[in-house]
Amino acid sequence: MAKPKKAGAELVERRGEIYRKAAEIFHSRGFHATSIEQIADAVGLTKAGLYYYIDGKQDLLLQIMQYAMDRLEQEAIEPARTEATAAEKLIAVVRGHADLVVRDSSALTILVNELEGLDRHERKSITKRQRRYFDFLRGVLVELDEDGKLLPIDPTVGAFGLLGMILWISRWYRPRGRLKRTEVVHQASMMAIASLLKPEFSESVLDLLTPPD
Amino acid sequence: MAKPKKAGAELVERRGEIYRKAAEIFHSRGFHATSIEQIADAVGLTKAGLYYYIDGKQDLLLQIMQYAMDRLEQEAIEPARTEATAAEKLIAVVRGHADLVVRDSSALTILVNELEGLDRHERKSITKRQRRYFDFLRGVLVELDEDGKLLPIDPTVGAFGLLGMILWISRWYRPRGRLKRTEVVHQASMMAIASLLKPEFSESVLDLLTPPD
Repeated sequence: MAKPKKAGAELVERRGEIYRKAAEIFHSRGFHATSIEQIADAVGLTKAGLYYYIDGKQDLLLQIMQYAMDRLEQEAIEPARTEATAAEKLIAVVRGHADLVVRDSSALTILVNELEGLDRHERKSITKRQRRYFDFLRGVLVELDEDGKLLPIDPTVGAFGLLGMILWISRWYRPRGRLKRTEVVHQASMMAIASLLKPEFSESVLDLLTPPD
Repeated sequence: MAKPKKAGAELVERRGEIYRKAAEIFHSRGFHATSIEQIADAVGLTKAGLYYYIDGKQDLLLQIMQYAMDRLEQEAIEPARTEATAAEKLIAVVRGHADLVVRDSSALTILVNELEGLDRHERKSITKRQRRYFDFLRGVLVELDEDGKLLPIDPTVGAFGLLGMILWISRWYRPRGRLKRTEVVHQASMMAIASLLKPEFSESVLDLLTPPD
């Protein structure tokens, strides 16, 4: 029997739900310790139903990573591209990435920590996209440097420092903790921006960072 | 037969070698995939010889973590304690920690990533020491805040941001890469310090950070 056809937006939405839920389970139990039945249960599908969306456990891992990269591109890179100055690009990409880490922590964590669960070909497709993201970040720092605004640091060190600060948020931030999500994103963005700019330019750039309501 | 007695300093030295080497192997192959024989081989001992120093694989993991915490206390906290101002303490602790991460990357990485290899009691003894380190860092930030020098961030967010930036170095720094170890430590320290301070105080504090030769 042919698989039932789903409308495009509905399908994208349902896939997103599955990826987020599966990411949470992989993240808390470990990829190898999780069965496809447990994923199916968690998303309210039979195993056969789940196979409508994915080709198997390893494919699911790959899809989660592609999904996380899609979101990173949509929510961090794309908004940054529309900005005019390097400083504004920096704000957009940092805030977009930090916000994604606190909202979708499991998928983003899996993106950086579960590469060994993929085969060589799949891994390459992900590391290529990660590399493109890194190059974008690094490019913003090179631009800042050309504007004379970057601290005397190598843009590679700067981009990795930035990433470390942002990615680490998923290790300590708890959604129901003392600190509000928007506060954490705002403060982490402030730190990331201040970590890169020469002090004499830092203040005016930090002023562009709108505080949460 | 009684175990041969070794002089104190020699024993400490030899233990340190074993911990560093074992950490490298655990780090590259994974804790579960590594056998005690492989560790013994790597440090040039028989399995029985290795048991002179450790009680088993899980004990070895615990010892590596204790060793990493010892070094962190000696090389980051202790130098910081002797400093007069919060800004100088911040410099000392950040530089000490970053330097340890680039020199002893495997042990430091295991300290943060392999807690689940320990039993509950052991894990508690390590997380207690980690917590003490975190509280020290956070305390320096509270002091900076009292001096009116901290950016408008929560000291907890600040301390975690700092840690993320420093710990992440072990994920990207390669000893034989383009960037010199001392350069990486210097630039990462510069970023970490700039990430926390109000721009108007940042410049004078960064001036205290002696560049590498």
